Amino acid sequence: MPEAENVKELLEEVKNMSELMLNLAYSSVFFESKEIAKEVVILYNDMEDVEERLYLHLFAASRGRQAKRLISIIDIVESSKFVANAARKMAELVLAGEALHPVIKEALMNTDEGIAKADISPASVFVGKSLGQLKLRTRTGANVIAVKRGSKWIISPRKENLLEAGDVIIAAGSRESCKYIRKIAKADIKKF
Amino acid sequence: MPEAENVKELLEEVKNMSELMLNLAYSSVFFESKEIAKEVVILYNDMEDVEERLYLHLFAASRGRQAKRLISIIDIVESSKFVANAARKMAELVLAGEALHPVIKEALMNTDEGIAKADISPASVFVGKSLGQLKLRTRTGANVIAVKRGSKWIISPRKENLLEAGDVIIAAGSRESCKYIRKIAKADIKKF
Repeated sequence: MPEAENVKELLEEVKNMSELMLNLAYSSVFFESKEIAKEVVILYNDMEDVEERLYLHLFAASRGRQAKRLISIIDIVESSKFVANAARKMAELVLAGEALHPVIKEALMNTDEGIAKADISPASVFVGKSLGQLKLRTRTGANVIAVKRGSKWIISPRKENLLEAGDVIIAAGSRESCKYIRKIAKADIKKF
Repeated sequence: MPEAENVKELLEEVKNMSELMLNLAYSSVFFESKEIAKEVVILYNDMEDVEERLYLHLFAASRGRQAKRLISIIDIVESSKFVANAARKMAELVLAGEALHPVIKEALMNTDEGIAKADISPASVFVGKSLGQLKLRTRTGANVIAVKRGSKWIISPRKENLLEAGDVIIAAGSRESCKYIRKIAKADIKKF
């Protein structure tokens, strides 16, 4: 199966995208942000492209002996798409400007997988550092899923992205790690 | 809305359960474990109970002025159930004993949200400690979603649960944090 590498990478992408979309969708509800919600819808369309490419690779490989097992790959992709669909539905709720009950926001703050919004103060150790350098995921357990700079959103920022004073970061992680990130961003914690 | 506290707590539970189910479902595929897959199906049934209780509370509260906003709560619950459904579908794949293509396991290992399986050696600092004491989530970024002791599974273990030598822990988290947890479990890292 010479296409294995491609199928594997595309499958990874499908899973990553679905989980990112879910986190962003909850964030869009939490902040009632149409901008984040729009990104979820865009990601859904991107995901359909990835899915199409993945299936083309599968068809190319379908003459091998593993052909029956290829179906299991489609099943996993379908499950990830189910998750992506849930995320899109939530985002559409925000895009439609539905009146959200305040209890939703309270509940989202208290779940195991929380959402943090943190403004980076000029005195924060985050300023001028790249996400790769900071290793926030490894060191705090929280994952930076979006950065807002001025009116622009950087969704799923890369390791090379430098943080600037005034940036707003959106992170997903445990309650403790969210609190920790907010403190470092505010420069209440100076050593990191 | 005197029922707000209950609705909030139940909504938190729905979101937590859906995310736990998704992690467990990927784990069941990864380890081709029917035991974990069964837990996902059980959790789905539990979730339907939680959902029913939540809606009963909503009906009790539906005479207030926030009545229209109550619909948004149902929308969020539905999205979480979509995620839970995706998890159940994946678990059913494992329960049906479907032949899984090896590329799936490879892909699941490489995604942003990885799965770690770690056997706790007698020399590990994990031995005799509770999950609450270890604060693994805060300190490594990975979340222990299941512990296997002998032939018994402890799904979504509590803070008070003590770890024992010979336990197998299943954790979900970044690749780095998964690697870190495996090293501590193996006692390759002694200080933690």
